[in-house]
Amino acid sequence: MAIAVLRAREGWPEELADAIRAARENVRPCRCCGYFAEGDALCEICRDPKRDGSLLCVVETANDVLPIERAGVFRGLYHCLGGRLSPIHNMGPEDLAIGALLERARGGGVAEVVLALGTDVEGETTALYIAQQLRVLPMRVTRPALGLPMGGSLDVADALTLGRALQHRQDLES
Amino acid sequence: MAIAVLRAREGWPEELADAIRAARENVRPCRCCGYFAEGDALCEICRDPKRDGSLLCVVETANDVLPIERAGVFRGLYHCLGGRLSPIHNMGPEDLAIGALLERARGGGVAEVVLALGTDVEGETTALYIAQQLRVLPMRVTRPALGLPMGGSLDVADALTLGRALQHRQDLES
Repeated sequence: MAIAVLRAREGWPEELADAIRAARENVRPCRCCGYFAEGDALCEICRDPKRDGSLLCVVETANDVLPIERAGVFRGLYHCLGGRLSPIHNMGPEDLAIGALLERARGGGVAEVVLALGTDVEGETTALYIAQQLRVLPMRVTRPALGLPMGGSLDVADALTLGRALQHRQDLES
Repeated sequence: MAIAVLRAREGWPEELADAIRAARENVRPCRCCGYFAEGDALCEICRDPKRDGSLLCVVETANDVLPIERAGVFRGLYHCLGGRLSPIHNMGPEDLAIGALLERARGGGVAEVVLALGTDVEGETTALYIAQQLRVLPMRVTRPALGLPMGGSLDVADALTLGRALQHRQDLES
């Protein structure tokens, strides 16, 4: 990258520097969902009238929104926690945007909360904690399916994943 | 391995050679399910009275039985196809143990057939073909869940798998 900058045509490195500066100055967490937004405005997902506001996808960080958007099947809104419960890293419920999530959920109009958190111990713990908080509210609480990845043979999966995939097997429509 | 054989204590390399010879002579496909069996006997899984005969797991090859057994959650019987449908490799339905599978399924007592085949195009095609053949019989036809692997963050999954996991999301019990 350094060599590309040194050898670049006139103007381009300065444009890059300005863009980096502008990104740092203008991009802030969306005040509704925590995803990347410009200035004090809502992010482009929260502003999009075609998104389904009754479906809320909870992710650990704003970065996690990107792969879900790339997958192209989720049309609801997001809620970024800003991390996950982790005693080792000194992260408790008060360090995450869980209060704001409950407020959004209590606000009404939310039919389903999808907890798309990591599938490791800390992610699972965070999901269970949030699910317990949401239990009193009249909405469905779900998670992405756990199972085999697409495009492989059986032995690409570890024993835990294969066991889970066999327990939660799906009916095959033919 | 060659060096281990050359340096081994007296007797061990000959035992290894005998074991290899015996395995080649005695281990044959189980005449019921196609898994590894000794001589003309049924394999140890088909012989086990504690296995649930109403649950049949269809796999591509006998090798695929091993990871499923390691996962430790499946207590039914198996049926090894001996491959999968593959026009490129000249494998048609008549090259696989599909006829024997239909015979077992028609024999009665089978409540569910789990099609645990590869999740790539050839595996999926084979699963759909078999599901169509089984459709006329009064049994459930399932497959292992497709979704996120255990123990990772969202971005370990490819877009196709993540999309599938979001489409088939599961209710979270809290």
